[in-house]
Amino acid sequence: MIEGIKVIGFDADDTLWTNEIYFRETEERVKKLLSPYVDAESIIPELYHTEMQNMYIYGYGIKAFILSVLETAIRITDGKLPVSILQDIILLGKNQLSHAAELLEGVEDTLNALVSKYRLIVVTKGDLLDQEKKLRESGLEHLFHHVEIMSNKNEGTYKKLLQHLDVRPEEFVMIGNSLRSDILPPLALGCYAIHVPYYIVWEHERVDEPVVNSRFYTADSLWDVVSLLP
Amino acid sequence: MIEGIKVIGFDADDTLWTNEIYFRETEERVKKLLSPYVDAESIIPELYHTEMQNMYIYGYGIKAFILSVLETAIRITDGKLPVSILQDIILLGKNQLSHAAELLEGVEDTLNALVSKYRLIVVTKGDLLDQEKKLRESGLEHLFHHVEIMSNKNEGTYKKLLQHLDVRPEEFVMIGNSLRSDILPPLALGCYAIHVPYYIVWEHERVDEPVVNSRFYTADSLWDVVSLLP
Repeated sequence: MIEGIKVIGFDADDTLWTNEIYFRETEERVKKLLSPYVDAESIIPELYHTEMQNMYIYGYGIKAFILSVLETAIRITDGKLPVSILQDIILLGKNQLSHAAELLEGVEDTLNALVSKYRLIVVTKGDLLDQEKKLRESGLEHLFHHVEIMSNKNEGTYKKLLQHLDVRPEEFVMIGNSLRSDILPPLALGCYAIHVPYYIVWEHERVDEPVVNSRFYTADSLWDVVSLLP
Repeated sequence: MIEGIKVIGFDADDTLWTNEIYFRETEERVKKLLSPYVDAESIIPELYHTEMQNMYIYGYGIKAFILSVLETAIRITDGKLPVSILQDIILLGKNQLSHAAELLEGVEDTLNALVSKYRLIVVTKGDLLDQEKKLRESGLEHLFHHVEIMSNKNEGTYKKLLQHLDVRPEEFVMIGNSLRSDILPPLALGCYAIHVPYYIVWEHERVDEPVVNSRFYTADSLWDVVSLLP
């Protein structure tokens, strides 16, 4: 049991709704489009390399991703690909942006079980417009007291969030699927954190070291979180 | 004199720092790149058309802009342009994202004159990461009580902002260069608004009707705002 909590922060992508799978689907389609022009196995690693290089300037989200896909496609084929392929890639991005997010199992029940006892907030990153759209479409907006869309999730941005919410670290628990973004920074600030793993994890969000912290919990599903909170 | 104000909202792009001019510069470079392949005069109108069509899905900001430039370039040349041109366009976008914003004249003096008497906030739209970067680089961050980066500036988003700030409409004045985004929505909610025109206005932000409202003011420069507020 985690005692003394006032505010619960929920990550959104792959915690409340599906997300990473759509990136994987787009990647697979890109792989198919480019495989006549380049070693298919090199495509995903090259793309990841481009994304990491562009992170400081593009940030997270689908528009950033598609710009990096276009750049990678041109670079690894030495520009020797038909322009129509690039047009197809732009369209893949639009399709991904249009994709309705699907709520993960148990999300509504979990939120409904907690909403009368805690202030619930969403803490997410990525494209502002895209995240707002997904939240609106989720039908869950009314359950949240506050929605924080950050350009990056790190100690600094969580610290600002706590100040903004006027809540002490030990009164805040963050729930999410990414150890790097949802778990480690809040723990470092003295908050509680509950990891709810999702079966697909983006390379960039992986953490090699095991997490050791007395305020760290793991739950097999979002619903299991309810039993951790009085 | 505008009496009873508690919070002042400042638009950022082309109110606190230069912005639109960099879009124009990129557009001119795109025009040069594409003019061997297509009627040069059609480029900007075609681009604007694409941007408006993509607005619902891409939103505002440089990444959205560059994706629309790429799409336009491919469409209006029927794909008959070298891939290297598209590579150049991606680079133009990165250059624009890297561009340091320049503070407009009188900004610092104005903020310093007002900060002890009012809560100052930034109300802007566009890419989260890009706007945060510009604010950080501006050196003005410490003068603002709150920064609101919206996906769109309309009555709905301003209404939420007022609720969030816990301030009544007649206690809030919005200052900005765009009639469409900074002036009309706050006025419609019963707030005050001060228009500080900037010499370049993006087509999309133009308003044809004159603004008639007893809470509407115009100032030739940001510094002139100080004399409107007691």
